[in-house]
Amino acid sequence: MAVGLGPLPTLHPVPGFELGIASAGIKRVGRKDVVVMRCAEGSRVAGVTTTNAFCAAPVLITRERLAGEVRYLLTNTGNANAGTGDDGLANAKRSTEALAQLTQVDAEQILPFSTGVIGEPLPVAKIEAALPAALADLAEDHWAQAAEGIMTTDTLPKGASRQFEHDGVIVTVTGISKGAGMIRPNMATMLGYIATDAKVSRDVLQALVRDAANKSFNRITIDGDTSTNDCCMLIATGQAKLPEITAASGELFGKLKDAVFSVFMEVAQAIVRDGEGATKFVTVIANGGGNAQECLDVAYAVAHSPLIKTALFASDPNWGRILAAVGYAGVPELDVSKIDVFLGEVCIASQGGRAASYTEAQGAEVMAREEITIRIELGRGEFSETIWTTDLSHEYVKINAEYRT
Amino acid sequence: MAVGLGPLPTLHPVPGFELGIASAGIKRVGRKDVVVMRCAEGSRVAGVTTTNAFCAAPVLITRERLAGEVRYLLTNTGNANAGTGDDGLANAKRSTEALAQLTQVDAEQILPFSTGVIGEPLPVAKIEAALPAALADLAEDHWAQAAEGIMTTDTLPKGASRQFEHDGVIVTVTGISKGAGMIRPNMATMLGYIATDAKVSRDVLQALVRDAANKSFNRITIDGDTSTNDCCMLIATGQAKLPEITAASGELFGKLKDAVFSVFMEVAQAIVRDGEGATKFVTVIANGGGNAQECLDVAYAVAHSPLIKTALFASDPNWGRILAAVGYAGVPELDVSKIDVFLGEVCIASQGGRAASYTEAQGAEVMAREEITIRIELGRGEFSETIWTTDLSHEYVKINAEYRT
Repeated sequence: MAVGLGPLPTLHPVPGFELGIASAGIKRVGRKDVVVMRCAEGSRVAGVTTTNAFCAAPVLITRERLAGEVRYLLTNTGNANAGTGDDGLANAKRSTEALAQLTQVDAEQILPFSTGVIGEPLPVAKIEAALPAALADLAEDHWAQAAEGIMTTDTLPKGASRQFEHDGVIVTVTGISKGAGMIRPNMATMLGYIATDAKVSRDVLQALVRDAANKSFNRITIDGDTSTNDCCMLIATGQAKLPEITAASGELFGKLKDAVFSVFMEVAQAIVRDGEGATKFVTVIANGGGNAQECLDVAYAVAHSPLIKTALFASDPNWGRILAAVGYAGVPELDVSKIDVFLGEVCIASQGGRAASYTEAQGAEVMAREEITIRIELGRGEFSETIWTTDLSHEYVKINAEYRT
Repeated sequence: MAVGLGPLPTLHPVPGFELGIASAGIKRVGRKDVVVMRCAEGSRVAGVTTTNAFCAAPVLITRERLAGEVRYLLTNTGNANAGTGDDGLANAKRSTEALAQLTQVDAEQILPFSTGVIGEPLPVAKIEAALPAALADLAEDHWAQAAEGIMTTDTLPKGASRQFEHDGVIVTVTGISKGAGMIRPNMATMLGYIATDAKVSRDVLQALVRDAANKSFNRITIDGDTSTNDCCMLIATGQAKLPEITAASGELFGKLKDAVFSVFMEVAQAIVRDGEGATKFVTVIANGGGNAQECLDVAYAVAHSPLIKTALFASDPNWGRILAAVGYAGVPELDVSKIDVFLGEVCIASQGGRAASYTEAQGAEVMAREEITIRIELGRGEFSETIWTTDLSHEYVKINAEYRT
């Protein structure tokens, strides 16, 4: 039921970054569920991780190890290794130790990632057994296979790729993501891996991943549930024959930033397009706020309202529900007489009430589309925020009522 | 599909308070959709109303008029008269003026209430035409009919009644409520009317309605959507032959408070039991918080999580989703190693991980029940809060996708 999400685009290999996929049979025999990524020596890795206090064991380990030199990323699906206490930590470490032995690196140089059911013990022996096959599979052109290897309830793999040229050198930025439910990333996403062959200073890389995630993964929501396992990693292998990019790099930094932001946005929006049960891809824009937070409060109130989400599913221009959500978003001293609301290009509410020009037919025409923009003009200031979400369908309930059975 | 909600209990008449019902054909011909309530001279009325900034026209008028002497309450269903701007205000006033003419009171002594679809013009002529029939129907024993007359998507009428004796005098507290969707009252409820024949000072009455609503209507949530029309009114007719109840009234005040709180709780919980598509009645308790707000944040995060709500619908003890919600509730410096989670009497998570004693069969047994308690022990302090909610079923999506069609 993915909305506007087709087959994977061409995912250009990133020199110095290889991906290998294997099947450990964690949840289902034969399913690709282990992905190993290898970063060439000298690569830098920066990342953001979930703000959920109950973060998973692998997230705790990844956070610590990000400060050092990273050589491998080890991902499993089918089991989140979250809510698993000390055993979970030991299991996550053990899986990286097994990979360290096979690859002759230090376990501290390996970042673990898990996604799947929360609260089950990680079947670490199965993962260990699959590592040789994953290593044998390592190749720079295995992005598409890895995009499939990290899927859980996703119906389609998600990836994006950009290239730009600088001083005659082609620089590549390629990324993949997964996620379809328990999606309201907060300083992170379910899982996202974006790599470039640019050489990037540690500070710039960390700022890039933070800023790009903030405008992409941190602006999507499917069900308002912030996961315990969100992680988004940005890898720079430095294999492109160009000077190191620092905060002072001017044009080259600008080109890289554009490419990174563009890939982040595409793979983040792909998660929404593949949202559980999604039949609509919905952009919510809050303009004219007095600060960024109140714009976000309004946009998320609209995006999380089950009443608005079911109306979107039904293609019902029930704009009163939008007004109600704006009204309870908690914006202090909100003057409703200054608020306009647009559905697509149609003004549905003006000065806090039904727009004089509005007809139900206009609203119905917009609501019938697969991609819908709801824009709220708050009339309080100059701030603006945009987020992306889905509708709430029968299928969402079905998927999540039956997830473990 | 109401959960544990049977036929109306006996609703004792409250001397000095009459109810009359009529059919104005606002949304459907023949449906009872207008209710007039008459308070005897000398009655006092206190109330709380929605905090939604887009509050409906009748709410604005009711708020103003509560300061004066109130003689009538006029309620219509089928149309919320919200998001209707100046015309909405004029229409609400006009309906009370029509009633004022027929009853020889001042329009300022009449409180208007509306509930139903947001954003449609109020069909005030239809309401006017129904007023004589509603007035002719006024009687002290028409509580049950009024409980039906204020229903919208409710499947069952909701009411509760208590009596107590003081110095040989019987005092009655009776109330009704309506609401099944767009339910997360905030300082109010959809619509609740509770009357007593006790004589109560204005200050005490206002404090009573605020405190009772705060522990009942303000602790329920179905979909997290705070309505534009929430109103809860407490009427004291003063017909019971007892001294006026003031803050200094000791035992009598205590008895009244118990009865009022008990009626509030029953009619508030009845709204949850009749929640749209509800198949479960869920109590969420957050104990051991450092303050009340963090208890509420945790409880509402659990109660609003679509993933938990669908797991409840499926009777799936997917406790990892509960941990995840606690983790993203925004409690500062949450130490997950101190957290225990109970499903009914079963400890499912201990010290932040799966409880050693827990078996899936234990969780499944609790989840199969119609009434389920989720208790989170935060281990941070002495505060505690309890709220009530429902699951998220196919029926919820169906009802709200098809509401206007």
